[in-house]
Amino acid sequence: MAQIYDRVALIGLGLIASSMCHAMRRAGLAGEIVGYARSAETRHTAREIGLCDHIYDTAAEAAKDADLVVLCVPVGAMESVAQEIGPFLKQGATVSDVGSVKRTVIEAVGPHIPEGVHFVPAHPLAGTEHSGPRSGFAELFDNRFCIIVPVEGTDRAAIDRLIDLWRGMGALIDEMDAEHHDLVLAVTSHTPHLIAYTMVGVADDLRRVTDSEVIKYSAAGFRDFTRIAASDPVMWRDVFLNNKEATLEILGRFTEELFALQRAIRQGDGDHLHDYFTRTRAIRRGIIEAGQDTDAPDFGRVKARKE
Amino acid sequence: MAQIYDRVALIGLGLIASSMCHAMRRAGLAGEIVGYARSAETRHTAREIGLCDHIYDTAAEAAKDADLVVLCVPVGAMESVAQEIGPFLKQGATVSDVGSVKRTVIEAVGPHIPEGVHFVPAHPLAGTEHSGPRSGFAELFDNRFCIIVPVEGTDRAAIDRLIDLWRGMGALIDEMDAEHHDLVLAVTSHTPHLIAYTMVGVADDLRRVTDSEVIKYSAAGFRDFTRIAASDPVMWRDVFLNNKEATLEILGRFTEELFALQRAIRQGDGDHLHDYFTRTRAIRRGIIEAGQDTDAPDFGRVKARKE
Repeated sequence: MAQIYDRVALIGLGLIASSMCHAMRRAGLAGEIVGYARSAETRHTAREIGLCDHIYDTAAEAAKDADLVVLCVPVGAMESVAQEIGPFLKQGATVSDVGSVKRTVIEAVGPHIPEGVHFVPAHPLAGTEHSGPRSGFAELFDNRFCIIVPVEGTDRAAIDRLIDLWRGMGALIDEMDAEHHDLVLAVTSHTPHLIAYTMVGVADDLRRVTDSEVIKYSAAGFRDFTRIAASDPVMWRDVFLNNKEATLEILGRFTEELFALQRAIRQGDGDHLHDYFTRTRAIRRGIIEAGQDTDAPDFGRVKARKE
Repeated sequence: MAQIYDRVALIGLGLIASSMCHAMRRAGLAGEIVGYARSAETRHTAREIGLCDHIYDTAAEAAKDADLVVLCVPVGAMESVAQEIGPFLKQGATVSDVGSVKRTVIEAVGPHIPEGVHFVPAHPLAGTEHSGPRSGFAELFDNRFCIIVPVEGTDRAAIDRLIDLWRGMGALIDEMDAEHHDLVLAVTSHTPHLIAYTMVGVADDLRRVTDSEVIKYSAAGFRDFTRIAASDPVMWRDVFLNNKEATLEILGRFTEELFALQRAIRQGDGDHLHDYFTRTRAIRRGIIEAGQDTDAPDFGRVKARKE
């Protein structure tokens, strides 16, 4: 694939940014990749592993000659970073981000983008429970969706160029507006994460069941919750603070449904339980057919463990 | 490993029974394995794939000459099966089961076990989202716990013999009483399953987010809930009806914690969220260290997809 940007600056060097580095290099999409991270330790690690072509000590220096600047910091840090780099951005450059919430990020970043610079918000739906510059890998975005959330009045060519970059990194592309994005993510990501955190917290709290029992017997179902409940705490704090309305709405629906099932258990209403549990199977089949998970029993983990 | 029982009868031929077949054969633990399933279609499939040495058309015939009879039916069907086979059991034989709930199964099955027959309840903590006689595989129990729940007054030699069988099938062994088992499982398995079913049900219900969106964007977290929400509906209906008290207790705790997090989101209390999300990471590390999951990013699924 041909080079799409001469110089790409990654602000923040966690899982997503480091995976972008590897994915851009795999396909030769960027002439030069430079980076910045707030923590000196992260910058040191990134230099040590040769993550980027150059690591700068300030965001402004990293951003100033870049054709594409991607903000890869927690949602709550987007505004201050945008404010810092705004005055240094090159005319004709594009600023994008990878935040999990879009409406508040657009509100926070937009005002700091000068005339003549394009702002194209994006959100790659991919992740693992690991964080930091060492956690990235080139395949993270393969066959996963990246949602582009164009702001009204943005130059179409700038949007399409960013789409080409994400396609080159292996992603599938969808476009939607910020409000719909935030609702869809509240359903598919934010509420499930909160629930997983809660379930793991409950297990950890109980005195009558020991931690070691929870750990030993986790293969019975609990384990599936712990991966997403091990995700980066700062990132997730910011997600909930910034997608408050949609998350609270879906949580409300969740609680209603849970109470209905709870009542069915209390009243011994087996038909209600059976019908509910039958209906949810279809969604799973859809996910496998769409290539967003494998049908391997136990996620193929039995096999993975043996290797 | 040496043969432990001359003749083993499996009543019910789903995921667990078919995996036991393969695991017993792998290690040469049984002289002969016979089976029975209520549905003619299941019996037909089991014969077709040569699952057991012989498949009978009644549970009584399958059980009558067996040295070990294992009840592998949903918890709600245990009593009628025990009643049916009770009069035909051989003196000195052992009856066991693989039910996910122990107190009600012991109450339901116990009275039908004649003098001179040993009853040793057990519960292997292993499973996948697949069901039926074709879904079994020999490795299912490897490195997973099987909990033995001895009934007072049972012959120790009979218990130890069943433990040898489970060890031979690859399982790790723990012993506990029925009440503690049911509480531990409410935490590690039953409540997580109910919550996963609820979350998947909520997504399926929403009109403003389409099914196809939920499916396409599931890699953002939701996907991890769908595997356990695709488990067998009859089995899970029976689990909740039979472990009512413990499940309702843990659900009550879960709801309290969820409400506290919901309030933190509403009030913008970032510290509360951050602290909670940090605490839950430790449990994940414990599970990986105990060998009950792998540390591979994304469960190694990216790789699995490419094979």
